[in-house]
Order: sequence, then structure tokens, then C-alpha cells
Amino acid sequence: MELKFEEELLVIPGAESQLRLHRIADELSRRDIDAVLISDHANLFYVTGRIFCGWALVWADGSAEYFVRRPSTLHGYGLHRIRKVEELPGCLSHRPARLGLELDLISWSAAERIRAAFGEGVEIVNASAAMRAVRSVKTAMQIDLMAESGIKQTMVYNGIAKLYREGMSDIELQIEIERSLRLHGCLGKFPVSGPDMEIFMANVLTGENADVPSPYDFAMGGAGLHPSLPVGADGTIIKPHNPVMVDANGNFTAYMTDMTRCFCLGEPPAEAVRLNTLSADICRAISEAARPGTAAKGLYELALGMATDAGAADYFMGHRYHAGFVGHGVGIEINEGPVLAPRSRDIIQEGNTIALEPKFVVPGLGAVGVENTYAVTADGPRLLTLSPQNIVQFD
Amino acid sequence: MELKFEEELLVIPGAESQLRLHRIADELSRRDIDAVLISDHANLFYVTGRIFCGWALVWADGSAEYFVRRPSTLHGYGLHRIRKVEELPGCLSHRPARLGLELDLISWSAAERIRAAFGEGVEIVNASAAMRAVRSVKTAMQIDLMAESGIKQTMVYNGIAKLYREGMSDIELQIEIERSLRLHGCLGKFPVSGPDMEIFMANVLTGENADVPSPYDFAMGGAGLHPSLPVGADGTIIKPHNPVMVDANGNFTAYMTDMTRCFCLGEPPAEAVRLNTLSADICRAISEAARPGTAAKGLYELALGMATDAGAADYFMGHRYHAGFVGHGVGIEINEGPVLAPRSRDIIQEGNTIALEPKFVVPGLGAVGVENTYAVTADGPRLLTLSPQNIVQFD
Repeated sequence: MELKFEEELLVIPGAESQLRLHRIADELSRRDIDAVLISDHANLFYVTGRIFCGWALVWADGSAEYFVRRPSTLHGYGLHRIRKVEELPGCLSHRPARLGLELDLISWSAAERIRAAFGEGVEIVNASAAMRAVRSVKTAMQIDLMAESGIKQTMVYNGIAKLYREGMSDIELQIEIERSLRLHGCLGKFPVSGPDMEIFMANVLTGENADVPSPYDFAMGGAGLHPSLPVGADGTIIKPHNPVMVDANGNFTAYMTDMTRCFCLGEPPAEAVRLNTLSADICRAISEAARPGTAAKGLYELALGMATDAGAADYFMGHRYHAGFVGHGVGIEINEGPVLAPRSRDIIQEGNTIALEPKFVVPGLGAVGVENTYAVTADGPRLLTLSPQNIVQFD
Repeated sequence: MELKFEEELLVIPGAESQLRLHRIADELSRRDIDAVLISDHANLFYVTGRIFCGWALVWADGSAEYFVRRPSTLHGYGLHRIRKVEELPGCLSHRPARLGLELDLISWSAAERIRAAFGEGVEIVNASAAMRAVRSVKTAMQIDLMAESGIKQTMVYNGIAKLYREGMSDIELQIEIERSLRLHGCLGKFPVSGPDMEIFMANVLTGENADVPSPYDFAMGGAGLHPSLPVGADGTIIKPHNPVMVDANGNFTAYMTDMTRCFCLGEPPAEAVRLNTLSADICRAISEAARPGTAAKGLYELALGMATDAGAADYFMGHRYHAGFVGHGVGIEINEGPVLAPRSRDIIQEGNTIALEPKFVVPGLGAVGVENTYAVTADGPRLLTLSPQNIVQFD
């Protein structure tokens, strides 16, 4: 006897799905694209609330069709079961004249296979920027899920001081933080768009390791444990009066918050306290200036100006290597829009969720500073990462 | 005063680098490709022993040049420091007529940007299969590193029975296994090629959850904790006499071994013991048949034949969903060549490292079976995953 086992494709409520599809449709219309064919996991998740093996086709009128290879248990309105993308065009009542693909994300081979499947008469265009623009503005439901992640991440961070044991290395502390994150429901996966960033669960930095540049596009570096993943903790023993910076995975709901806090064994040095306070002050100042309509690059300039006024420009966003931004959008992935950087053309919008991380790396001292995630609302910033911002002494 | 801080680009010894470059060169020559431009992290790691942000250009004469964007601290023979790929062709003494790119792996936009940088007169061809072929045959050094991973993974697996606590769920057990893996030096990152697989650290399956199909191209499924990562443990409480299958991250050296073992609270049912023994028998039989020159598809047929003879064909490699393979190459990534599948055209070669996983999913019983990683040698299989293969009772 075969068990019946079926699941609705759409995990998000119908009204939420319609809202998201119409946001995509608006962006497609603005760019004169007739439909976008989605297979990137983060974009599939945005549209349906789940990952599946297949494609979602969203039309510029806000309708959508779903083409599922796996699992076979999914069903729902607009769902076609196909084995390969070549079967997809035959399922459509008409073909788009201009078809958008995620050309910045899917492989050359995958894109050309889709182009061949649709044949001549269908112009392929890049819809990556359109999807990025859509996803940089969150719905109320998405912000609620981020707030939930923020609360759980805060609970874990508030317990970090208790996880320290005498003689621990940075990685040993990190492993206990990873366990606590997981026991609080962290999904583990640290979603990143594109090939320029990789990380496992957390970046914990102390001592000289904080000043080792990494190949990745993160704010902070660190040598890591192995040249196959050269970022973060490298086994440095945590020493008294040396700050320990913790930037750990906030993915509890498939919407991430991004928070950094510093800890210390015994009293932190006065200069660490000064720069950590400066970081929290910059964070608050940028968040309050990040009103809808503000240029994102102006926020970077504000942060750099405050660091310069405090005589800390040489240490701002790194020392041997300076990261070229002070904040970034965050949500389904850690590197969403807008980007707060000197040459950014992004404009802050209501519904952006931004991680602000004005950090400092000082030779002989290590890394200090905070990172907070905010939702941009009409009434000002809503702080989602709620742990105390001072340098906390280990218990 | 500025600290001097430099690192040699090549982490692997010069002779090992030469060996790998010449293997790539042979494959390029065979396919009439003049050079391959590499940026995929796994391929960069193969060539240099590290991840960096940039490109490695390997010529069909076995020479190589390296183009580094980040970190700025790298130096070495043949290293060019560039900011963007458009600067790359100008660094070359001559241009390749046929340039191979990893077209199955890099984005359409990245590939077209490289094509434009080289301009007309340089034909772009797909070198993905060439690199996959090269990487499917390991050097002695790579096999040593896999053996080291296998020993560490074995140490962790041999301690799993002690990690169980009364009333634990599958995910709670998994979190303790993750911690043990990390404390033994597991790097955490679970490297996978392409977009069709995602996993966090481990797949732990018990009860009916073992029969839930996933969208991914893994042998086993499971609902997972969230539709954003629909695979593996789903919070099922571990019940007496229900097998618990553990398939956890063996990446201790940036070369992974792949091992699965089953555990049980109290005596495992007789049918679970029978199928687990059958799995170990199939594993041994396939490994012994996997001599250099053997067709990989014949090994799949051998496995399926043994399962059929034992009356277990309906449960072989899944029940609601049957995975279409019984083994796969493993090394830097979990899904390397050769593939042991019905329509595979791969031929087993000396130096292949293959994970064999003839598993069974039985309704009402769950998932049982073992997975082992072997190196193919001229003298027969070398087993790298050394834990006892019986269903082990929790302490």
C-alpha cells in the first residue's frame, strides 16, 4: 500500500505571494521585461517560501507558473511537472518576447540551455538587478520574520559570556556559540549570493588575527583554520584584556539578522572601549540618517567622517585591508541591497533592512565595534538586534 | 610602523603543483584547448592549495599564471595583481586561440565579461568537463589527505553512541555530532559543486522522516527543519528500536571522506539488521569490483542486482523517491566523478576516490545502510572510513 504524501508548493499565504509577485511585475514592467524565469534558490524562496528543484516563471502581469523537477510530492495552482528545461516552453500558452534570466547568478551553460529551449524570437535579458531591487525592499511579513530572528540571535548573544572557559581559543569559543545558535533553532545555512563570500556559521576574531586580510568581500578578515576557508578564527588563545569580536549566524527563520558584539576576558583596554562606543555612536547616527530617500553613499561618508573626527580613520573598517563599505542590506541572504559604500547609487527606501557595521581594527589591540540590523520605516529606524552594545566581560 | 605581512600563493609543494598542472595540461591537449581560466573555488584550491579572489590561468604546456584581486598579501612566481578581469589579457605574452572557461560553474555574466575582455580572435570553449575529469583522479598527496579525514571522521563516529541522551530528537543528536566534528577539527564547510545540493553539516534521519523526498540530488531525503533547507532531520524524537542513520561532514583536511552509519536506541529490528548487513555486503562487493577499467554503470547494476536478489529492490536508494545512483566520486567536493549510475559513461580509474552508499528506506522502519569511501588502487580498494559497520546501540 502506497502512502499518500503531498505538499502545497506555496508555503507563504496567498496574499503575501500576490504582493511579492506584483512587486516583481512592477520591476519587470519598469524594465520592459515580459517575464522572469527564476531558479536561484534565494529568489525561488522569495517567490514561493520554499526551495525546490525547478523554475518559477513570473510574468509582468503578476501571474506565475511553477515548473518542478523535484520533489514529486509538490502540487498546487500553476504547477507543471517537468523533467528538463527543454519541456518548459511547450507548457506555456504564449512565449515572452523579452525573457529575463538571473544571468549574474546562473551558470553560462544553464542560461544558454534556456535560450536554446525558447529558440529564436525570444530575447534573453538580464533580470538579476530587477530581482535584487525587488528583494531589497521587504514586506511586513518579511520584517516580522527578521524581527523573530533578531530576538533569537539576541538570546544567544546574551548567553555568550557564560560559554567562555579558561584557556579557550577563538575557535573553541566559536564551537560553543555554534552549538548554542543551533539549540536555539539557527538553521545553520549562512546564505550568501554569488561566489565572493563563504563563511561557516561565524567570524570570531581576537588578537593579531583580526588584522589578517581575507579574499572574501566581508567587513572583517582573519586567517581561518585552513587555506580552503581563509576567514575568521585561527586557533588564537583568548588572552586577558584582548577584545573578542563575535559576528555569528542570525538565520533562524530563513531571514537573517546580522549582529556583532565584543567580549573580553577581564577589563577591556580604554582604547577598545572608546572605539566600541564610537562604533555604537556611528551605528546610531547612520541608522537615524537612513531615512527613505537618502543616498546610501552619504551614509558611508557620515560614518567615515565620524571616524575621522575621532582620529580613527586609519583603523576604520580594517587596517591592513579596508573594507569598502559600512553597511549592507540583509534578509534571505547576507549581501543584499542597498550597499552603503562610497560609490553606491542606492537610495534608502522604506522596507530596507540594513546591517550597519562601523568596525575598527587596531594593531596590538584587535577588532572592536558593533553591528546592528535595522528596518527602515517611515517613523525612523527599527532596531532588530537587541543585545547590549558595550564590550561584555566573560563570566 | 607598518608590519610586513606576506604569504606565498602556492600552499602545496612545487612538485605537487607541477603534477596537478600537468594533469590539467594533458586534459587540455586531449581536448585541443590552449589554456583554461579558473575561478571556481574548488578548482582554484586544486591548483594552488588555497582560495583567493581572482583567477588561475593554466596553459596546455603545464605552465600557470595567477591573477589576484584579494588578498593583497599574496606573492609568488607568476603572480599578477589585478583589480578586474579586463586587465588580465594585457598581462599575457600571447593570447590563447581556444580559451577554456568553467562554463558549467561560473555565471553567464562572468563568462561574457571574460569573453569581452579577450575580444575577437579568442574562441571560448567549455572546460568544465576537463577539470572534472582531472579532479576525479587523485594524486598520492590528495589520497593521504583523504585518509587523514577518514581517520578523524572515524574517531567522531566511534563516539556518537555516547552523545545520545534520553528523549533526544534527531536534530538534538545532530547538534552534538556537529560539535564533536568541529572539536575534532572539521572545517564545517560542506563543499558541493553546482546549485543542486545544499546541506548543513549532516543528514540524520529516523522514523517516517527518512521517506520524505527532498529537492536535492542526495541519496537520502528528509523534510529538514525549514522549507528553506528541505533535507535531513526534522525534529523527530528518537524512539526505541528505530534506526537512526547518520551521514555527517568528513571535511577535516579540505578533502572529504563520506561515511554513513546507523545507530539504535535498544535492539535494532531484525529486518533493519538484515538490510544493514546487505548494504555492507553490497558496499564490499562493489568496492572489490571497482577495478581500474571497470564501467561505473556496471557497478550500479551489481548493487541493484544484489538488492533485488535479497527482495529489497523496492527500498533500494529510497522508497517514495529512488536516488538514481549508488556511489559518487568525492574529494574537494562531495559530488565529484565518477558517478555510479545506470547511464553513467564513467570508467573507474586508479586514483578515483569513491563513496559507495547502497542504502534502503523501508516504510515503518526508516533508513538503514552504510556508506564508505574507498580509494581505487592497482591492488584493490583501500577503505578510508573505518568505523564498525553494524547498527550500533546508543550507550
